[in-house]
Formats: sequence, structure tokens, C-alpha cells
Amino acid sequence: MRAEILSVGTELLLGDILNTNAQYLAKELAALGIELYYQTVVGDNPKRLEETLYHAFSRADLVITTGGLGPTDDDLTKETAVKYFDEPLVLDEKALEQIQVIFDRMGKEMTENNRKQAFVPENNGVVMYNANGTAPGIIIEKDGKIIIMLPGPPKEVVPMFENQAKPFLARKQEYTFISRVLRVASVGESAMEAMVKDLIDAQINPTIAPYAKDGEALLRITAKAKDEAEANRLIDPVATALKERLGKSVYAEGETNMETEVAKLLVAQKKTIAVAESCTGGEISSQLVRFPGISEVFLEGCVTYSNEAKMKSLGVSEETLAKFGAVSKETAIEMAEGIAKAAGAQIGIATTGIAGPDGGSKDKPVGLVYIGLYNNGIVEAKEFHFAGNRNKVRERATFQALDWLRRKLQYEK
Amino acid sequence: MRAEILSVGTELLLGDILNTNAQYLAKELAALGIELYYQTVVGDNPKRLEETLYHAFSRADLVITTGGLGPTDDDLTKETAVKYFDEPLVLDEKALEQIQVIFDRMGKEMTENNRKQAFVPENNGVVMYNANGTAPGIIIEKDGKIIIMLPGPPKEVVPMFENQAKPFLARKQEYTFISRVLRVASVGESAMEAMVKDLIDAQINPTIAPYAKDGEALLRITAKAKDEAEANRLIDPVATALKERLGKSVYAEGETNMETEVAKLLVAQKKTIAVAESCTGGEISSQLVRFPGISEVFLEGCVTYSNEAKMKSLGVSEETLAKFGAVSKETAIEMAEGIAKAAGAQIGIATTGIAGPDGGSKDKPVGLVYIGLYNNGIVEAKEFHFAGNRNKVRERATFQALDWLRRKLQYEK
Repeated sequence: MRAEILSVGTELLLGDILNTNAQYLAKELAALGIELYYQTVVGDNPKRLEETLYHAFSRADLVITTGGLGPTDDDLTKETAVKYFDEPLVLDEKALEQIQVIFDRMGKEMTENNRKQAFVPENNGVVMYNANGTAPGIIIEKDGKIIIMLPGPPKEVVPMFENQAKPFLARKQEYTFISRVLRVASVGESAMEAMVKDLIDAQINPTIAPYAKDGEALLRITAKAKDEAEANRLIDPVATALKERLGKSVYAEGETNMETEVAKLLVAQKKTIAVAESCTGGEISSQLVRFPGISEVFLEGCVTYSNEAKMKSLGVSEETLAKFGAVSKETAIEMAEGIAKAAGAQIGIATTGIAGPDGGSKDKPVGLVYIGLYNNGIVEAKEFHFAGNRNKVRERATFQALDWLRRKLQYEK
Repeated sequence: MRAEILSVGTELLLGDILNTNAQYLAKELAALGIELYYQTVVGDNPKRLEETLYHAFSRADLVITTGGLGPTDDDLTKETAVKYFDEPLVLDEKALEQIQVIFDRMGKEMTENNRKQAFVPENNGVVMYNANGTAPGIIIEKDGKIIIMLPGPPKEVVPMFENQAKPFLARKQEYTFISRVLRVASVGESAMEAMVKDLIDAQINPTIAPYAKDGEALLRITAKAKDEAEANRLIDPVATALKERLGKSVYAEGETNMETEVAKLLVAQKKTIAVAESCTGGEISSQLVRFPGISEVFLEGCVTYSNEAKMKSLGVSEETLAKFGAVSKETAIEMAEGIAKAAGAQIGIATTGIAGPDGGSKDKPVGLVYIGLYNNGIVEAKEFHFAGNRNKVRERATFQALDWLRRKLQYEK
């Protein structure tokens, strides 16, 4: 089956919104094993919309549209599709009721215009009722061609595709593609690839693809299989082999992130923590506090930007600051130990560094960061050099601090 | 001039990356007053790429491509374009030197493949040298048709378009569209629209468009003008009228954000600040610390999640916590005053609330947040009720805390 994505909406042509629907649908089609050759964006213009839809069906079996199902005269996706398929529209009472429900929920009167949205093809159609907006989605299948019409807002597109369009398409596919992602910390994408290159080259089904995203290195294992159970049977041994090879660097599987994993470990192990931040400025605390339930173990955070605050709140000694400077291994150690003791926490974590753009010197350049980690009486510090602007340095320092703690919690219980 | 955007890359068809280039270019074309009717995405396939490019030129005068300028055999945008224009390619020594510079900077050997990237059209072409990657961009103009070929990575596309392609296009346009954005805080989009509806309706040039982005309400004033000076003459009185109407809610103009504006005010007024956060968990500190130079005035931040920390670090009294609870106006007041006095700061700001998903009650539901503000001896607190999940509550509380402080600094100096 060959597919095209057709995004309808003048707001896309003006650059007012980002076409996240196209990426979402492209990913879903790839997972279903459906070939996608083109994505097109067209405005709310009847002639150009019609030309584009006809052109798409001249080379594809399946066209997925987003947008143009609204109540206004500009919204013409459905009208154009039924013209192509030569199908009359009739009022669908259930669709009308659903639209009424949405209006009731908003506390607004339904307008006459919105009745237009409740018209659906009399034959060869499937109505996808919409719990999140007024426009029902519609599938038409006739003479070997399929159109799946989805609304425009991503919060309506995603659940409608997931719950209604995807099962419809999956039934037509003999095989599906199921992926599992391994998340790798503190190893660059190319270094990671080199470590597992022979495994990647040896694999046909599942395949292994390395990629980088938001500073993390990821490995995607994708199996072609009849169902999820078969996919898991294919993926499991490959995931195990990769994890053995990459060791402690693999910090999680699937959709998650470092701060969530660290927060989970802290809560599961009931380890209390306190954080003292200089260059990261509260970012470590803020990320950990995103996790619901962290209040059980998160005792205190300090943003000690000034030397005075480092001395007063953390008990860093004046001598250490004078002799080694605020950005030093020694200060990081005293900060980590100081915050842990002040808060009565089992773990103390501290950062001090030069995030830039100013404040760097030859001896202590921008990007130099010391991370201190106190854990049940033992305190250590590590030196890092991060590339990038002020925010990148802060992000990377935060990630490294959390990854160090993650390794301690996972492997040195 | 009618334009099309053609994004080349199989990774877009697989949904591996989001097509941010198309949005950026669409916005830029709209600002230049160039009509855009279609955006197309095609993979790295020679036949489909050629068909798509020829189809685009059958209906457009200008085609802007991104991607397909890399060193591999799959990268065929340039080869397809010179076929359409019937122009031979020749080696450009300066382009080759620039590629060598990029390789030297990465500390890598240039491969023979990369020489391919230094070939440019012998005639009718403009080379856009690339300071951020190995692929030079190319413009070809012939017989009333123009192609602008840009690389794929957004960090190369944006500066190349801005500095080289945009001036080239601007010279061809009689009028350009220049916008100015007013940023409005603590007023919803629809409330803001209602406040200025008569002004919006009365305007033809410039136009006024309200929109919402990341929880902020924005007003975009767009003038059609011959140049920037004329645009400013048209925009200035309209901006003034809008600002008079919206008063203190307008917190800034142009590309900026709340934390930057607050940090600028603090530094300019040399007002020292300390922050005590419970439900926002370090987010206020972290946002302020993003601003380079904040170390002049930011004395200390505290994440006091537990009652013990609130008492020990901020001096909140045990009686207040027992009588009113940690989430109360009284606690917010003692936190704000406590952190300011502990840090010796002129300003103290504090948050305490229930971010959820758990911890809510009938009296104190999820979303209830108290913000305390101490400023030169006077301390106040306000009660807020924020909708949304844990992260939304934290984001909104952070934004409101900063906006309150912004109003104090701007209007009660």
C-alpha cells in the first residue's frame, strides 16, 4: 500500500503553525509498514485542494488528510473527497449528537454551520466520532482507493488515528513494524555506533538504528512481525546483546528521560536527597521535582550563586574558596557534603562551573564544570568540559549530574 | 511571485524529524509578501525528486528546497536542479576551501565525496557559502524561474536564508511585510482580543492579529511597506494605541520572554533577589539564572519542599505551618520575607502550592498556589488557581510569580 499525507490549511502555508501532524502520521505509517512517498501542504483553496487530491490519488492507494473539516465555508476537504469518490453526503444523527455534546461541554450554543460537520458519506464510509472536537473524521474506501480524513488540531488527530484509523489500517497489513528504543547516556552517537557496529551489521530482522536526539544517543530496534508477541520474541535477544555490550551506559528503555529515571530510583530506594547548584541554577531541583511523589525523598535544594551563599547555606570554607576558587573540585566536594548534612539527606549533589558567556579564563574556561556527589558518608567530585552556549552548558551539566547519580543508584546500591 | 517549498529527505517521510524548515521558510515568505501555495516533502529518490521539482516549476516561479545537498550518492537536489535549468557544474575553489575549513574545525579528514559539494553552476548561479556546515547553498535564476537550494539542518538553513537568500528575494519585491509583536501577560487571548477588538477592526495597514503561544497572549502588528522605516512609521502609532489600551499587561515587544525581561529589570535597577520555591521546585531560579549577568543580583535560591526546610532555611514558624498549613497565604508571606532576610536581598519571592496529581483536598484543590513577594520591607501574597497537569501548574505559577515581580519593577520603582 502506497500512501500520501495531505495537510490542508492556509495557516500552514503562512508558517503560523508547525506541521507536527505530518511527522506523527509519517512515523505511524512507517511502523505499519506502509510506504509513504510524498507529503503535501495545500491551503484552504477549492481548486488547488481538488487538484492536489486528484494528483495524490493518481500515484497512491491511500491518502491521509488533516484539516479542512471545520464548520466554515473554507473547510472543503470532505466536499472534495466525496466529489472524487462520487458519493452523496447524508446527515449522521450520532455525529450531530456528539457535536452537541462538545458545545454543551464548552457552555456554548451550537451554530447552524456546525450541522455541516455531521454530514457523512451515505455509502462506503466509516465515521470516526471525535471525543475532543466538533469535526468527526471520515474514512472512504472504494475501488481500491482509501481516504482517511482527520481533523486539524493534533490533540484530536492523535487519539482519532490511534484508536480508529490505525486499527483499520493494521487489519489491511500482513506485517507490522514494532520498535523498542534503548536510551544511552554519556556516550556520543558515533562512539556508541562504533561499539555495536558488528551487531548492527549482523542484524536483518530486527534492524538496529542508532540516532541522536536532544543530546542523548538512542538505539532503535525495529522488528517486522505479525504481532506484538512475535516482535518481542525477535527484539528481546537483540536488546539483551546490546545492553551487555553497552553496559551501564544504557539507562532505560522506551519513552522516558533521565530525570524521571533518577526520581524513580530515589523513590523506590527511599534515598533522601538534597541539591546545591551554582552554574545549573536550580535546573537539577526543577527537573527532579517534575516527578509526582518526589516529595517523599527530595528534602531541599539550594541555588548558591554567590560565595556568601556557599559559605552560609552549605558551610563551604572561606579558605577553600580563597585557595581553589568557587569553581573547583574542592568547592564541589564541600557543597555536596554541605547540602547533604544541612538537609539531613543521604545524598547530596552539587554543581559549580562557568556557564558563560563571560567569566572564563585560560585556566578555567567557559564550559568547565565540577560536579560533587555525596552518598552515605563518601564524597567525590568530577571535572567536566562542556561545549556550547550558556544554556547548553547548564543542560549538559544537569544531565551528567543526574547520570552520575543514576549509575550510583543502579549499580552501587 | 509564486513560491513552493520542496523539502527533500527520506528522514522526513519516516517521521524521524520534524519539518521546522518548512514553517520557518513559510513565515519568511509571508513576511516578504511572496505567495506560497504548496509545500511538498519528497524522499531521496531520483525519479520522484525530478518529477516533483518539474511539477513545482509548472505552477511556481520560485522553488525553495531544503536538503539533498550532502556528499553521498543519495543527495541529488543540485544534480536535479541543473538538469532542469540545463546548466553545467564546475568546481568552485572558494566553496572547496570553506568545506576544508569545516573539516579542520572538526579535526577530521575531508573525504573525496565532499568535493562533490563544491561543484556549482557555471552560469546563472549564486553560491551561498556555508559557515555552519559543508554544503554551500545555491541560487539559480534563468528564464523567469528561480531555485534557492538550502542545506537540511535548521542551524545551517536559518543563517543562510537570513543573510543570503532573503536579501536576494527582498530586492525583487516592491513591498515587504514587517511585523512587530506585543507580548501580553496575565490576560487570556480572548479577553485580550475583546479589549482591543475595535482597534483590530479599524486597521487595514498595518493589520493587528491576536494569537496565543506557549500560554502567552500575543498581538502581531504587520505593516505592508516599502522599507523598514516606512513600516515603523505605520506601526508606531498603532503599537502606542494598543499599549495604552492594555496598560501594564503588555510586558515587552519582539522576541523575548518573561524571565529575560525580569532579569534585565533586576540587573538594570541593581535590585538583589532571593527565591524560595516549594511547588515550582527551582524553576524560577533556573529561569532567572539563564540570563547572563544575573550573578550581579541573584543572591540565593532555595527549594524548600519539606516543612523542616521551610522552618530551618527560611524561618517559617512552626505555628504558621500548624495553623494555616504549608500551602497558605501566611506561609507564602513568611517564605518570601524569610528568604530575603536570610540572603540579605532587597527582593524575596516565594511559591507554595499543590501541583498535583495528588495532595489536593476540597479546601485546597490541585492547582492552588500562593505566591509571596517581599520588596524593601513590604511583603504581600496572592492566591492563584491554575488549571492543567503538574507541569502546567508549575509553569503557570512560575510565569505569574515573574509577572508580578515585573509589574513591581516596571511600575513601582
